[in-house]
Amino acid sequence: MHLGRVAGTLVASRKEELLEGMKFLVVRQLNADNEETGGYVVAVDAVGAGVDEVVMYASGSSARQTELTRDKPCDAVIMAIVDTWEVNGETRYQK
Amino acid sequence: MHLGRVAGTLVASRKEELLEGMKFLVVRQLNADNEETGGYVVAVDAVGAGVDEVVMYASGSSARQTELTRDKPCDAVIMAIVDTWEVNGETRYQK
Amino acid sequence: MHLGRVAGTLVASRKEELLEGMKFLVVRQLNADNEETGGYVVAVDAVGAGVDEVVMYASGSSARQTELTRDKPCDAVIMAIVDTWEVNGETRYQK
Amino acid sequence: MHLGRVAGTLVASRKEELLEGMKFLVVRQLNADNEETGGYVVAVDAVGAGVDEVVMYASGSSARQTELTRDKPCDAVIMAIVDTWEVNGETRYQK
Amino acid sequence: MHLGRVAGTLVASRKEELLEGMKFLVVRQLNADNEETGGYVVAVDAVGAGVDEVVMYASGSSARQTELTRDKPCDAVIMAIVDTWEVNGETRYQK
Repeated sequence: MHLGRVAGTLVASRKEELLEGMKFLVVRQLNADNEETGGYVVAVDAVGAGVDEVVMYASGSSARQTELTRDKPCDAVIMAIVDTWEVNGETRYQK
Repeated sequence: MHLGRVAGTLVASRKEELLEGMKFLVVRQLNADNEETGGYVVAVDAVGAGVDEVVMYASGSSARQTELTRDKPCDAVIMAIVDTWEVNGETRYQK
Repeated sequence: MHLGRVAGTLVASRKEELLEGMKFLVVRQLNADNEETGGYVVAVDAVGAGVDEVVMYASGSSARQTELTRDKPCDAVIMAIVDTWEVNGETRYQK
Repeated sequence: MHLGRVAGTLVASRKEELLEGMKFLVVRQLNADNEETGGYVVAVDAVGAGVDEVVMYASGSSARQTELTRDKPCDAVIMAIVDTWEVNGETRYQK
Repeated sequence: MHLGRVAGTLVASRKEELLEGMKFLVVRQLNADNEETGGYVVAVDAVGAGVDEVVMYASGSSARQTELTRDKPCDAVIMAIVDTWEVNGETRYQK
């Protein structure tokens, strides 16, 4: 999984039927030191994440292993809201 | 998922039988700030997208989770036409 | 999918049994403007492509969705020979 | 698979139900010469790895092929603790 | 698939049970011109490859499509030992 900060929302009224009702969030990727990498992903939200929250997302076929996304054309899902992580004994993020 | 702008069309008359009738679009990738990254993908169109439209596409096995692409040798599908997205409270794209 | 030019052939007499009889082609990747990127892939040929032809290939699990490659340890397949594509209204390649 | 050094732990109390009870580790990627690449992954621990240990992890759908992670929205799993490896006849890491 | 040269072996006594008995090889990636790229992968050996041999490996779910690796947490498998390949009419590698 990778880490990211929810940067905003995306609206797409015309989409594959299987995606009706899903919330799409624009997630800026973070590195292990809690810095933005410049990368992003648009992910389906499976945990009720809000803008500015730090989240963990899964990609690829693993993104379809939630009740919400199963068998859907979705390749990225937010599956956790991060409380804290540490690297080399130092806290890099605290909610 | 990632974002892209439909740049053009691709024609391939000789192809795997399972792909007969599919529309292939050349999609230039966009970053979260609506700038081209230089990357691209050729994606099957599952939503009736047109040239110059901004779209969202899914990659990998998730690209086969539409009625059109199921069990097909297709690793990228346009599954939504984007209306708008915002980042850090600012609109980055509006259809 | 991505685009490439068939650069040559590869021979591997000692291989996983499931791959017997497959033709392996070395494919140099092309960008959307028909320029080589420096990248490459070795792909199984499912459409009878020849050296110097411009092709489209699928990667990952989607590469196993042809009759030839189903359930085989193959992660890239040439699934179409390209006739033409255009970008921003200009033809970038014509067979 | 790729190699990494376990750099720390991550806590996420609000997460997809299927992930309850899993231990998430922040893993800094190593190259074949046992140097950090700058990349990282957050992986589920399937083998009881501890901070500072050098591990091997699997990504993508293969990360779901352990008893712990089967059918879970998990795209990276630590599946081995490395004892040693060598490159060009020289030991690059010894536990 | 991609090409690589077997650079060495890796030992991991503590690992997921499903991986017992597998041989792990450190493979340095090669480009189409038979030059090292700096990248690497640790792959399970399905064909009896030895150190210094040039091999072809499959990644992702395709790495699980050999008898040895089926349903295992393995994302890279050596599925062929390369005899020769050519690019632009020139031999780039000959065993």
